[in-house]
This record gives sequence, C-alpha cells and structure tokens, in this order.
Amino acid sequence: MPARVFNFSPGPATLPQEVLLQASKDIVNFNNSGIGLIEMSHRSKDFIAITDETERLLRELMNIPANYKVLFLQGGASTQFAMVPMNLLGPDKTATYLNTGTWSKNAIKEAKLIGKVEVAFDSEGTKFDRLPDNLDFSSANDKEYLYFVSNNTIFGTQFHEFPKTKTTMICDMSSDILSRPVDVSSFGIIFAGAQKNMGTAGCTVVIIRDDLLDLAPATLPTMFKYKTHADKGSMFNTPPCFGIYTVGLVLKWLQAQGGVPAITEINNKKAALVYQAIDATDFYRGHAQKPYRSKMNITFNLPTPELEAKFVKEALAKDLNGLKGHRSVGGIRASIYNAFPLDGVERLVEFMGVFAKQNS
Amino acid sequence: MPARVFNFSPGPATLPQEVLLQASKDIVNFNNSGIGLIEMSHRSKDFIAITDETERLLRELMNIPANYKVLFLQGGASTQFAMVPMNLLGPDKTATYLNTGTWSKNAIKEAKLIGKVEVAFDSEGTKFDRLPDNLDFSSANDKEYLYFVSNNTIFGTQFHEFPKTKTTMICDMSSDILSRPVDVSSFGIIFAGAQKNMGTAGCTVVIIRDDLLDLAPATLPTMFKYKTHADKGSMFNTPPCFGIYTVGLVLKWLQAQGGVPAITEINNKKAALVYQAIDATDFYRGHAQKPYRSKMNITFNLPTPELEAKFVKEALAKDLNGLKGHRSVGGIRASIYNAFPLDGVERLVEFMGVFAKQNS
Repeated sequence: MPARVFNFSPGPATLPQEVLLQASKDIVNFNNSGIGLIEMSHRSKDFIAITDETERLLRELMNIPANYKVLFLQGGASTQFAMVPMNLLGPDKTATYLNTGTWSKNAIKEAKLIGKVEVAFDSEGTKFDRLPDNLDFSSANDKEYLYFVSNNTIFGTQFHEFPKTKTTMICDMSSDILSRPVDVSSFGIIFAGAQKNMGTAGCTVVIIRDDLLDLAPATLPTMFKYKTHADKGSMFNTPPCFGIYTVGLVLKWLQAQGGVPAITEINNKKAALVYQAIDATDFYRGHAQKPYRSKMNITFNLPTPELEAKFVKEALAKDLNGLKGHRSVGGIRASIYNAFPLDGVERLVEFMGVFAKQNS
Repeated sequence: MPARVFNFSPGPATLPQEVLLQASKDIVNFNNSGIGLIEMSHRSKDFIAITDETERLLRELMNIPANYKVLFLQGGASTQFAMVPMNLLGPDKTATYLNTGTWSKNAIKEAKLIGKVEVAFDSEGTKFDRLPDNLDFSSANDKEYLYFVSNNTIFGTQFHEFPKTKTTMICDMSSDILSRPVDVSSFGIIFAGAQKNMGTAGCTVVIIRDDLLDLAPATLPTMFKYKTHADKGSMFNTPPCFGIYTVGLVLKWLQAQGGVPAITEINNKKAALVYQAIDATDFYRGHAQKPYRSKMNITFNLPTPELEAKFVKEALAKDLNGLKGHRSVGGIRASIYNAFPLDGVERLVEFMGVFAKQNS
C-alpha cells in the first residue's frame, strides 16, 4: 500500500483507495481480456456492461424513478449551466434562479443569454454566507423552472431543506450528490460533475425526467440536446469511458458502505467534529451562517491572513493537504466528501486545537 | 507483464503498454505525493505541470506556430461539429464542406443549424469510397471556411494531399493526427478526439489560430466559445484531467519513437503490408478506391457476409480483436493507429493469407 496523505481538495477530490487500486489494475488488462480499460471500444460488451451497471447502481442508491433518464455527459457542470436553458428556456420565457454562490451566478449568466431570468434570492451582498429562510417559492410557479445549487462548494453553505414550488426544479448537486437522501421525484433535472462526490473529472451525471426531453428547440445542436443522449443511452458519440467506469467503482464502494443512509450518518459525524472545533474557540470563525452550514465544504477564517497561511503550511507538514480556501473567500476550506475518511477529520480537528492554543 | 491481445478497435484504440503501466502506477500515487492522479486538484502544481508539459510536447511534435492556441476540451469531435460553426459562422454566412463520410455529414448537419453550407464535394453516392481528385477549392475563397475530415475512420479513406483554398481551413483530424507530418500553419483549426491516435476517450484537442478566437457572437454560451478556454489555458472549469494526462503519456511515447517522421515510416510500412495482402488475391476487396486508401483504417470485404463473420471469429481466436467493420460498410476494418504494433499487422497479414487459401 502506498503512503497516503489526507486530501481536502474541493474537486477533483479524494477517492476511496479501493477505487484507485481497482482502476490501477483494470487500466492495464480489463477483466483478463488482454485489453486495458482505457483502450477498450465503447461499443464492446465489456464496456456496455460497465455503463449499464453504473446506471443500475445509481438508480438503486438514489432510488431514481423509472420515468427519469440517467445520462453520462462531458463538459462539467459549467456546460449544464448552458444546456439547461438551451433545452428548457427560450427568448420569451422566464426561469427563476436562486443566487447563492459562484456557480449559481455563472448559471444565471448563461440563462440570460437564452431567455429571461428572475433572481428570487440573492446573498452576494453578504459574501454568499447564507441561504433563504423562507423556502416558499410559489412566485416561481408560473416560470419555466426554478434553479438552485444544493451545496455551495466555495462558500460552504448547503440547503438542508429544498425550495417549495410547483414548477420544475433544476438542481446542481455537484458537491453533495449521494451524500444524503434526496427525493429525486421532486426534481426535473439533477446534475453533478463527478469529480467531487462520485468519481473523477470528465464525467457529468444528469438525471432528467423524461417529459423534459422533448422541450428543446429543433435548432439546438445535436450534442446539446438531452434527448440525443437519452435516446442512445449516453452512447450517441464516444462517452467519457474512464469517467463512467470510475463513477461505477465509487458507487460500488458506496453500496458496500451501506449506501446513502449509512454515509449520511458518517457525513453528519465528520461535519459535526469540524464545526465543534470551529465553535470551541473565538480563534476560528465560520464563514457560512450557522443554519446553512455545509456538511461537505467547511469554510472558516483565522484572526489574520498570516495565521491562515501558517495554518495551511503547518497542516501540510502533517499530511493534511488542500486546506487553502478559495481565493474569493480566503481562509480555510475543508472539503470532506463521502470518500474523505473519518480519521482524516479527527486528525484535522486535533491539529486545529493545537494550532489555536499555540497561536492565540 | 499481463497477456496482451492485438486490438484493432477504431477508437478507443490500442495504447502503448508503457502508457498503460505508467497510468496504472500514477493513478494510485502520483509522483510519490500520497495523492492519486485522478483525485488531484486541477489547480495543483503537479497537475498544471502535466498540462503544460502535454501542450509543450504537442507543440514540439507538430511544430505548432506561436500564434496558435492548444486547447484540451471535452465532448468529443461531435461537439466540435457544432462549436466550429457556432464560433465562425452565422445566419447569413456560408461555409464550404467536403462530404467524405459519416463525420463530415454529421458536421454539415450541425453547420446548417447555424448558417449556410455549400457542399463542394460529395462521395456519398459511392458509399464514401473516394475523395476529390481536384484539390483546387478556390470556390471556397470567399466563404467563411473550408471544412474537411482528413481521414475517414469508417470508410477507410484519407487525404494524402490537402485541399487548396485561400479561406480558413478547418480539419477534423481525429483519426490521423500525429500519424504523418502536417503543416499546421495552413489550417485555421485542427481538432481531434484523443481516443484514436493520442490517448483515451474524454479529451478533445483543438489547435486554433488566435485571430479566430474573437469571431464568436457575444450571445454564445461561455463554454462553447473557444476564447473562454484559450484565455484560461483550458482551465476555465475542471478540465478532463485524466484525458490530458494520457495524451501527455502518449506524446512522450511518440517522442521516444523518434517523433512524427519516424512513426510515419512505420505507419507506411504497416499499411503497405495490409494492402499488399488485400491486393494479392481476388478474395479480398478493398472498400476505398486505391488513390484514397487510408493508412490508419483499412476497410475490405470478403466474397460473402458469412465469410466475413467467419473471418472475424477465427481472427479473434488468434487474439486479433476488433476487426469487424462498421455497420454502414460491413466487412472488415483494421484500425492501425500509431500505437498499433508492427507485429500485430504481420500476424493479421499471415492470417489473411491462410484464411484466403482455406476459404477460396
């Protein structure tokens, strides 16, 4: 077993070591076929079996209803920012967006290129440190859809309950998909870049209710229509094969952990440990307001930027890697997705205690 | 060393075993960092170094002029079919296309959604078995660009000389990039899905002359503008990290073989061997007309579909994998990209001789 450090990166993010070891083996010779995983035709029986099994596992773990399609696409969540309005909006139509961070802001920018946007909540004025208290968004009932980001990676906020509206809900779950139970049937589209909570970079999972597939204008280029990919089981063109495979391995690992209910408990425990360490002293100051704190990305500041730099440096010396906050918030960010181990969180919390004492 | 078979797949395609073994190692623990390659932040020094080195190698191997940008994108060549006209065409503008196979046909379909298309050559009537004899396309001089596919993977034809025109040339080189010397400065854009001749699925390389970056309409979504990616060194959003890494490994391997001039000689030798075997008997019949035969994808038929099925089956028993032709041509297709070894070609040719004798 190679030496491992604790990797707090926000994405691409730490993966279970079992996943790395299996991928390492399959890349050279898949299933004893004499062909490596990454040189295998996407039309081969072996690869089609990988895709089918990955979809089956996702459906099982998220309890995805039969009237939803699962797509494995490319281009990251940033491409979805455009594909959602390109498929569902139009010049004279309006969609409602909740502006809760960098990624919703970027999504709003794209939607405005396609149609009209109503921003029903905006926390940019307080550096995106909060989410709406009132989740009644019936104001969106007559709009094409309500769009929001379930977990804000950069600012460390997370919806613990979801908006209430009668229109179609579209959710960017890139940074907390599979981290807790979600009722898929209450959404029109859920999408997520795989590289945070379910795989590596280069694969975007889209879960889409099938009645939404027919709304795209005929003039939309083929690759940007959800229907193109839904009709061909994500095999319209060469899919992101290695990305799909890695999602499959992560889902298998998640299932072996006991699935979403079991990982939710562990996630709750991990996040509670770090927030307790933050709240235990005035030395640390959480960025997100308490009711909206994320269990995936924990953001906090120290008394000075100098101390923050020192914190990151000393943590690194203790094999706690990737703790530097995003440039737009500064400070510290600990990303502790599903695959981040509990003992790494314990090590961080211990370090935080010692560092606070030594530098207060 | 694991057992290897000879993999004639058209893409994803065989990779050098050195590449597989190196990837296998790095995935678990990159550069002894304690973090696996596929869980490493794309903003980390290690990953930025990978991207920079991959670009540097490509520039060196293809002799790419300084006024060209190299982009590592997602979505495959099929996404480029739309991105090219979205960036360079418009409702009242015309582009010239050469229709030489399935991929040009698909590209024409996308361009027609954006602007006007003039098809200056079309060989669909003869099942795409030929390319233009007269390469003078001065008829395209006043159009926005001339678009063509350098090598037609499915039908097995290849331009041995390129069209002549004064307008910007756009070339889909997905299936023969780096297989022979090319004067990049004669093109406006060269793009290629990596999974045939330079890596694995999930990464598309775009080489674009920098004056073309500013032509996109302001209303084009951010992710579909070449300029977005050019301005950020392919790091506007999380790039296809593993895909870029794999391209880097393949380029290193290619450099070690002696670069493009050396691989050209080997490719010529490999293709000549198979075409000699085809022409040695009436049993085999090449699909592509002789002057346009591809050195990458060799397509041929046997006297009956039954014999073709028998050929594929018996070849497989001899560890010659992936020889079944594309459904639109039938017959046999041997894809022998850069990384396909000479001894695999020799084995195929030997088998072809024996099979022809036994079944004539």
